[in-house]
Amino acid sequence: MSVTSCGRLIGVGVGPGDPELITLKAVRALGQADVVAYFAKLGNGSHARAIAHAHFRIGAEELPLGYPVTTEMPKDEAPYRTAITGFYEAAAQAVAAHLDAGRTVAVLSEGDPLFYGSYMHLHVRLAHRYPTEVIAGVTGMSGCWSQAGTPIAQGDDVLCVLPGTLPEEELARRLTGADAAVIMKVGRNLPKIRRALAVAGRLERALYVERGTMSGSLCERLATRGDGPAPYFAIVLVPGWETR
Amino acid sequence: MSVTSCGRLIGVGVGPGDPELITLKAVRALGQADVVAYFAKLGNGSHARAIAHAHFRIGAEELPLGYPVTTEMPKDEAPYRTAITGFYEAAAQAVAAHLDAGRTVAVLSEGDPLFYGSYMHLHVRLAHRYPTEVIAGVTGMSGCWSQAGTPIAQGDDVLCVLPGTLPEEELARRLTGADAAVIMKVGRNLPKIRRALAVAGRLERALYVERGTMSGSLCERLATRGDGPAPYFAIVLVPGWETR
Ligand SMILES: C[S@@+](CC[C@H](N)C(=O)[O-])C[C@H]1O[C@@H](n2cnc3c(N)ncnc32)[C@H](O)[C@@H]1O
Ligand SMILES: C[S@@+](CC[C@H](N)C(=O)[O-])C[C@H]1O[C@@H](n2cnc3c(N)ncnc32)[C@H](O)[C@@H]1O
Repeated sequence: MSVTSCGRLIGVGVGPGDPELITLKAVRALGQADVVAYFAKLGNGSHARAIAHAHFRIGAEELPLGYPVTTEMPKDEAPYRTAITGFYEAAAQAVAAHLDAGRTVAVLSEGDPLFYGSYMHLHVRLAHRYPTEVIAGVTGMSGCWSQAGTPIAQGDDVLCVLPGTLPEEELARRLTGADAAVIMKVGRNLPKIRRALAVAGRLERALYVERGTMSGSLCERLATRGDGPAPYFAIVLVPGWETR
Repeated sequence: MSVTSCGRLIGVGVGPGDPELITLKAVRALGQADVVAYFAKLGNGSHARAIAHAHFRIGAEELPLGYPVTTEMPKDEAPYRTAITGFYEAAAQAVAAHLDAGRTVAVLSEGDPLFYGSYMHLHVRLAHRYPTEVIAGVTGMSGCWSQAGTPIAQGDDVLCVLPGTLPEEELARRLTGADAAVIMKVGRNLPKIRRALAVAGRLERALYVERGTMSGSLCERLATRGDGPAPYFAIVLVPGWETR
């Protein structure tokens, strides 16, 4: 009979930014985890860690998973794909080593873990091999429309979530068809997003939210905001309600 | 100088069902509210109240807002619209009376308040007249895909949220165009949803989740579930990840 059994993997959503928008379930899981892992950009620290740190068990081991530097590589070409796939493989192995040793590993995720989150790359590599639980979180978009006080969708509204990385024509086409829309990954895509909204006749209604629920957050009509680059935590909302 | 100032309106998301999936912020707001209001169907009680009740301030006043009985009325005709609009007007007036008396009123909302929630009908009537705050919550769909352990969208995926009340042709068309989809308001619409998914070639990947994160929840492939009516808390997920 073996004395060690393998540990548990827990994907923990920490919410959109306000440390109070974490769930009771996430707090409990963090208080029990032996290891807390999180993705981090070099030099940037981890937003998820900053949100959740107060709830880590005393003595918990931290496992930062630092993204490789790929800024010079075009994202749709083979060298980038190889670098990023290798990184996720290595990250999964680092987490697996703790699980094999019987430790419970909580992996932090901004917002909700399975909604456009990096945690998914660990989940697809590990969830079939280890007992796994995912703790849903408040998404960034919910934080943003709540802060803006804007009903996003109701009744028969169709809501489309669009990555700002899509080509301009596709963005415009999809915006034309949707009653309500959320555009994620705004950053450098802002001028393109603005043009697509104008083509779709939706620019007037669009709201721009930066750092929703975090300190230093702001919310304004996109039409009156300049075209300067947006930060990573920025989103565009096209509320559906009033079209009916 | 007046001695009474008006109270605050707080829309409180209580999450998808698991009482632990409520946020710290919601718990704090409920602990401070003088009045807790919630929508309820006659004879059904309120799910939101059951989730959040443990956090009400001792002595808080409860304000149940009971939907009128409209089961016999066709939903797209004038008598139904008149009844439901009158109901929301009266509900807003009942809440406003407490706000005018200087009381803080928390209005409970399943999931997230501004995402297909009844709270929105109070918000649009009251938020311009009283200090108002909305506390984002974990949506039902996040609870469902987390429980199913299924990454819903990543990278350049477009995610469409579709009410199951839409006509079959529109559902099929929108499902064909989306990388990932969530179909809400399943209930009696299940046979129609199944046909639309089949037409769009997405039935094989579709998951059916009932009472996600609540007791008695279940999750199965839609293809193998019978066509019997689904309960109110049921959702269909079409994960995007694997199409890439
Ligand atoms: C890789 S996705 C991660 C989404 C996350 N898992 C969630 O559930 O919201 C990152 C994008 O989410 C959006 N986002 C997340 N949180 C945000 C916030 N607090 N304010 C504004 N945008 C946010 C931004 O568009 C950002 O580019
Ligand atoms: C009127 S909408 C309210 C949505 C809510 N405000 C939210 O943020 O999820 C109700 C629909 O949400 C879906 N839903 C909400 N919670 C659910 C759960 N726990 N399990 C399955 N479906 C759920 C069902 O499709 C249901 O018909």
